[in-house]
Amino acid sequence: ESITFGVLTISDTCFQEPSKDRSGPRLVNLIQRDFQNSSIVTSYLPDERDLIQRELRKWIDRQDVRVIITTGGTGFAPRDVTPDATKPLLDKDCPQLTMAIALASLQKTKFAALSRGVCGIANNTLILNFPGSEKAVVECFETVSDLLPHALHLMGDEVALVRRTHA
Amino acid sequence: ESITFGVLTISDTCFQEPSKDRSGPRLVNLIQRDFQNSSIVTSYLPDERDLIQRELRKWIDRQDVRVIITTGGTGFAPRDVTPDATKPLLDKDCPQLTMAIALASLQKTKFAALSRGVCGIANNTLILNFPGSEKAVVECFETVSDLLPHALHLMGDEVALVRRTHA
Amino acid sequence: ESITFGVLTISDTCFQEPSKDRSGPRLVNLIQRDFQNSSIVTSYLPDERDLIQRELRKWIDRQDVRVIITTGGTGFAPRDVTPDATKPLLDKDCPQLTMAIALASLQKTKFAALSRGVCGIANNTLILNFPGSEKAVVECFETVSDLLPHALHLMGDEVALVRRTHA
Ligand code: NA
Repeated sequence: ESITFGVLTISDTCFQEPSKDRSGPRLVNLIQRDFQNSSIVTSYLPDERDLIQRELRKWIDRQDVRVIITTGGTGFAPRDVTPDATKPLLDKDCPQLTMAIALASLQKTKFAALSRGVCGIANNTLILNFPGSEKAVVECFETVSDLLPHALHLMGDEVALVRRTHA
Repeated sequence: ESITFGVLTISDTCFQEPSKDRSGPRLVNLIQRDFQNSSIVTSYLPDERDLIQRELRKWIDRQDVRVIITTGGTGFAPRDVTPDATKPLLDKDCPQLTMAIALASLQKTKFAALSRGVCGIANNTLILNFPGSEKAVVECFETVSDLLPHALHLMGDEVALVRRTHA
Repeated sequence: ESITFGVLTISDTCFQEPSKDRSGPRLVNLIQRDFQNSSIVTSYLPDERDLIQRELRKWIDRQDVRVIITTGGTGFAPRDVTPDATKPLLDKDCPQLTMAIALASLQKTKFAALSRGVCGIANNTLILNFPGSEKAVVECFETVSDLLPHALHLMGDEVALVRRTHA
């Protein structure tokens, strides 16, 4: 049995030209690398609050989607609304997880302070906002990858997320 | 004159069998060890939002209760609702205190990122959500113990919390 | 063309006797030291939520004011309401920026955990709550000074904030 990840690329540019997206495909690779029994659904959206919330709700309502990772829209630009679209959908905030991701990122660059991404739980789905850059996405994923199987286990999933062992 | 601490153990299991609780009694010991003029009230509750809020409100309304430490119910399980029950009661958030506790815990284990506890002030009472494990409770208490006398002093208490000097 | 900073000293004492304020004037010096094309407006207010919100709104509505730094009112005292006055005005929270400031401050003193300041964006204005002590203000400003030109650039300002080069 598999656990489905949702990878949502949020970017006006990438929505117009998905071929320009490097962060979404990179996330897909990282998920496949680390988790044996993962399925992945992907989507592209512009930086529009209503569209983001509609897609998130659709995935939250799917029983198989247990983790949603968004990439993009977490910054200080007027069009960056990903965290603001995400927060009203959350049943539970996970500020310490947000902090752990930010801490790891701040060790690479002080500009990690300009991300505004949040983490939280909606229904039985964990939602993580990652920045839009490929480099940031890799760093953030490395921080959470070890934690995901335990997090999903605590969230009460009968299906366990299986970590690949690397030779 | 003494300052009363409330120690609230929140756990379905411990509510059924208080003898199984190690974190609550450990907190009582740590408070007695560090503070000369402390009184302590304790209580056990299941992971039920309404019951937690009712007990917190009762202690917030007591003039002598100046610090409430909860243990348990801060995680990712569906029944973990302690922070979600606490937040609506707070007049003031204390995110930097939450962060300082998380930072110290993250230095011990990366799984500290999966706590969701919050800190804040309700009326003249400081409320701290600690995780449910005995080990986590000890680490969190060590982080805040030095800060508590100053915090209560700032909160305007005419009665000072007196730190024990250890030989 | 210049970018205007608002420096708002929030303190019952300094409102009565502005000559007692060391943090506001220190902030003015730091801004002038680091940014070539900055103008600065200053104001003094007592720790009154409504007055704070009215002044913040006035500056948020001014097109030239792009950064507001408050000093004071971030602590645990009953009269400390600066973050609580600020939060309802924000369109966007910046918790990672708040965290980066707190992290730097915690490296100096564990009592930085007792600040409650927040950072966020209202309209096209970045608002930063700093503590009231001169020492804390210097530390917090050092943390954000490098980030401000990039933050304002992302916020879409056509006028760039120009960093002074120090010989
Ligand atoms: Na009380």
